[in-house]
Amino acid sequence: MPTPFDPGYGAPFDALVSSFPGPGVYTGSDFRSEWGPVFHRGRLDGTARVLVIGQDPAQHETIARRILVGEAGHRLQGFLFKLGIDRSYVMVNTFLYCLFGQGGAAGKANVTPIVTYRHKWLDAIFDHEPIEAVVALGMLAGQAWEKWSATPKGKSVSPGFVKITHPTQPESASGGNSAKHSQLIAAMLDNWNKGLQAIKPAIATPDKNRPLKLYGSSFAAGEQKPIPMDDLPAGTPQWMATDDGWADRTGSGTVKRRTITVTVPKSALS
Amino acid sequence: MPTPFDPGYGAPFDALVSSFPGPGVYTGSDFRSEWGPVFHRGRLDGTARVLVIGQDPAQHETIARRILVGEAGHRLQGFLFKLGIDRSYVMVNTFLYCLFGQGGAAGKANVTPIVTYRHKWLDAIFDHEPIEAVVALGMLAGQAWEKWSATPKGKSVSPGFVKITHPTQPESASGGNSAKHSQLIAAMLDNWNKGLQAIKPAIATPDKNRPLKLYGSSFAAGEQKPIPMDDLPAGTPQWMATDDGWADRTGSGTVKRRTITVTVPKSALS
Repeated sequence: MPTPFDPGYGAPFDALVSSFPGPGVYTGSDFRSEWGPVFHRGRLDGTARVLVIGQDPAQHETIARRILVGEAGHRLQGFLFKLGIDRSYVMVNTFLYCLFGQGGAAGKANVTPIVTYRHKWLDAIFDHEPIEAVVALGMLAGQAWEKWSATPKGKSVSPGFVKITHPTQPESASGGNSAKHSQLIAAMLDNWNKGLQAIKPAIATPDKNRPLKLYGSSFAAGEQKPIPMDDLPAGTPQWMATDDGWADRTGSGTVKRRTITVTVPKSALS
Repeated sequence: MPTPFDPGYGAPFDALVSSFPGPGVYTGSDFRSEWGPVFHRGRLDGTARVLVIGQDPAQHETIARRILVGEAGHRLQGFLFKLGIDRSYVMVNTFLYCLFGQGGAAGKANVTPIVTYRHKWLDAIFDHEPIEAVVALGMLAGQAWEKWSATPKGKSVSPGFVKITHPTQPESASGGNSAKHSQLIAAMLDNWNKGLQAIKPAIATPDKNRPLKLYGSSFAAGEQKPIPMDDLPAGTPQWMATDDGWADRTGSGTVKRRTITVTVPKSALS
């Protein structure tokens, strides 16, 4: 059976992926710009109905060269599934490069060339894709959406919009405390349930009509979904789509900054 | 200034990168099939004049998802430069996956589904690209060419052909002995000089007309060339093109088999 793959960047997106802000804008003190930009995941072929705005790529995304493929991506894929959206989505981030520390994030989101470039993507997506609903992951993504919405082109469209808690906020905010982590997961899923109910009516053309099934207080079996192979470059091994713990920053200090280690899951060794 | 990138796989190559032999054919005892196939590097847009056939991808190729981007690729890029070929080439390998040990290599090169699939690529390349010359890197690549040449489609074309020593044969064959390594480099460059002289007349349409400048007994400054950004996926960081020692298999035993570590060169940290 053929393995689908992401065909990459045709017009008008080809121009965007060949001219993008570099380390002069995304400075090394706030961004891991040395790893290169990661642009998107999902449809750019005129079939995207839902736009997801995320925050920034991390180590899995840096290797796969598509955004939201690690744990956040698997959780999000399950969220979209509940909306009946299995492939008709496109995702972009607030930032092209991985944040280095979170200190400067809020300020950086409004740096002019970062905003200008992000708006070019949003312009192109709304010109090219029949977007019915927008989902923002976390505060900065929400602000990125609002900023674009206030532009002339943003004012000319009126998709549904919802901001939900970022899918790995429980990990960032619990600092390894497992009781706190469980609480934060429950709070996030409550927030996501409200988000599902708010945004579902805006999606007029889902891939599948599914009755809305809300989350409980923790992820149930099957509520985190693999990344579709359709979203990944040709030749990507299957475990990069089904597994979400295969890339890690190793070492410490500058060595850690310079290093990503990719590990094939044991189960994928034939 | 825009950064060029490889646009990926349009027809007829899209069908080839979605249906390819997997670990049932490329068995785990002889191939690192767990890392996924790596298909090609270079032009698939009807502008390739030179076809290079290599052997198998290694760790750099696995991460960049294009063949011949590590040390062998930089040496080969210099060889093509001497022929006036800066971008009008396409490269495929004898094998889709990295060999695990070299023991079974010769036998595996003639396994029917491996040959059948390789012939589909060669068929498609000759249908689609105006190939004037073929360069095979090492014995197995040479045999792969001869095998295809004996097919009906192979008999219908008559490009120039030369087999040259594989670009990292001196490393494989010297076992860390530096005197032997120098001798093998000198022998390889002598072989390459003969190859350059043999194949240059077949290239009627080089990118640049350059007087042929032969190698000395070791690589001179500038005789190893960076990989053009045109050959790499969108977002690839520049150091993956200019540097050739950024990916390594780390650990030992099964851990080593499962692990590739990517390290940003110090010079690329801003």
